[in-house]
Amino acid sequence: MIKPLILAVDIGGTKTAFGFVSEEGKIIHHDHIDTGQSADPSELIGRINQAVEEAFESLRKEYSLVGIGIGAPDANYFNGTVDFAVNFKWKGVIPLAKLFSESFHLPAVLTNDANAAALGEMYFGAAKGMKDFILITLGTGLGSGIVANGKLLYGHTGFAGELGHTIIIQHGRMCKCGRKGCLEQYCSSTGIVKTYLEILKNDGKELPENIYDIDSRYIYEKAMGGDPAAFYAFNYTGELLGFALANAVAFSDPEAIFLFGGLAQAEELLFNPVNISFEKNLLEIYKNKVKILPSGLAASTAALLGAASVAWDERKKTISDV
Amino acid sequence: MIKPLILAVDIGGTKTAFGFVSEEGKIIHHDHIDTGQSADPSELIGRINQAVEEAFESLRKEYSLVGIGIGAPDANYFNGTVDFAVNFKWKGVIPLAKLFSESFHLPAVLTNDANAAALGEMYFGAAKGMKDFILITLGTGLGSGIVANGKLLYGHTGFAGELGHTIIIQHGRMCKCGRKGCLEQYCSSTGIVKTYLEILKNDGKELPENIYDIDSRYIYEKAMGGDPAAFYAFNYTGELLGFALANAVAFSDPEAIFLFGGLAQAEELLFNPVNISFEKNLLEIYKNKVKILPSGLAASTAALLGAASVAWDERKKTISDV
Repeated sequence: MIKPLILAVDIGGTKTAFGFVSEEGKIIHHDHIDTGQSADPSELIGRINQAVEEAFESLRKEYSLVGIGIGAPDANYFNGTVDFAVNFKWKGVIPLAKLFSESFHLPAVLTNDANAAALGEMYFGAAKGMKDFILITLGTGLGSGIVANGKLLYGHTGFAGELGHTIIIQHGRMCKCGRKGCLEQYCSSTGIVKTYLEILKNDGKELPENIYDIDSRYIYEKAMGGDPAAFYAFNYTGELLGFALANAVAFSDPEAIFLFGGLAQAEELLFNPVNISFEKNLLEIYKNKVKILPSGLAASTAALLGAASVAWDERKKTISDV
Repeated sequence: MIKPLILAVDIGGTKTAFGFVSEEGKIIHHDHIDTGQSADPSELIGRINQAVEEAFESLRKEYSLVGIGIGAPDANYFNGTVDFAVNFKWKGVIPLAKLFSESFHLPAVLTNDANAAALGEMYFGAAKGMKDFILITLGTGLGSGIVANGKLLYGHTGFAGELGHTIIIQHGRMCKCGRKGCLEQYCSSTGIVKTYLEILKNDGKELPENIYDIDSRYIYEKAMGGDPAAFYAFNYTGELLGFALANAVAFSDPEAIFLFGGLAQAEELLFNPVNISFEKNLLEIYKNKVKILPSGLAASTAALLGAASVAWDERKKTISDV
């Protein structure tokens, strides 16, 4: 018997991952392509389609694709659109779910990549059984998915949980969103690179030969190798993140906050300063109650599992409506 | 036939209001007493009991009290306790619902006064039919009640929605909670008084004869009379509040934010700077979508209606369980 699979797609600022996911959350196959910087989203969808065709060829005898779950930054679950994305060249409101659906001839559902990761964590990861938690994705930007009362918070227009764009330092670093001092300008892969370069500059140190090669991985390795500037960059990043998370707790009083993505893989180097700053800045009633934890899912698959779980959920709703 | 009423109690830092509320949300009678600053909460409960006895005397033939709904700052709905209250002399964890229940021989339910006001707004005020909104109380402190997906956000331990204790200015004004720069140190009746006195001092102006007579009402009247320092105090307060609310929108994406309490009665004097700063600081996707509105309920009764609605709701649950 042919088994149904969801095509899960996770569109990031740099890479776009895709995978085929069963109803039990098993990833049959996954891969990624470069997101690229075309102003036309159809260009990316065309390349995804081609990559999926090739990857699915050998699975066709056993499986069939029944739907698409897409995670993307600035995505709107209600409308199926990506609105004013700041990490892509796309302009205005992009009907991404519709474009995917037309390209693949399959039903498609779209959600914020951080919301997708939060659902993935709840269904298949370390947040199983939790009803109130926050998941923070530390990638090119900073995304967040907030679960309250056992449900993902979508808000009135589908844009709840944009903690990366809370202003953390008034008149701070310029953000792609056009405002200044957004959290993601400090606490993200790009944020820590800016911090590291600032520290080197302020210390009068020579900048590395090709500064465009510097990423959070580079800074991690420098810090582990004893570079004080790199170590301090992690400290500063963690301090600000801990502060921001303490403020977030005053909003939704979560049981735990999960850190997910590239930066979170730095483990103690990031978690230590986050925890110290977090507890220091918490209101008394929350102290020693809220755990900051690493995601329970592999970084490469959590967003896919999340995107897939939204699609599976949607499929069940549609079938039961018939 | 004897009609049932809920005794609604709203405990504030300065005054404690009480009233008798019907199931339809009609307030049969209401009054208030001074909260006082006794370290023993039983002292306050004893005085409330006495005042209730006297007020209820003439109603006894027609009505009977069937339960108590209490709103208080730092109250925990789950436990029925007030934990580490910063606006009272009470110490540690106070089992307020139990103390009320024992004093009155009636079932008692406790909730945060701001949460109570939010429920009041949803059932009887300007938030009727809304599923996602935030209510901000601007009193001695700054309280907040957050409604998401049509439900009040309680969080994992019952302490969601403490926006007054998000740190808005790092290393800012000392707060009663022991930390520095909390929102309520700026945006509240006490906050605006501090701002006004700071402005007078910085301008080298003479301070008024008895600075302890200065409250938000005094500053309002000064501003309406053309005092630039008072006008600027409202501007500064509104600017910070608008900034904080723009950050709050990135969390729960509400349809509207309601401002409630003494300061909100300053109307344009507060709402104008709030609105300008709010729209300026909003992320693009939220701009011109979120309304900042005055509460639809009278300041004197909203918290009572909210506290009563929690008690009525609780009573229905209890009866249907039998």
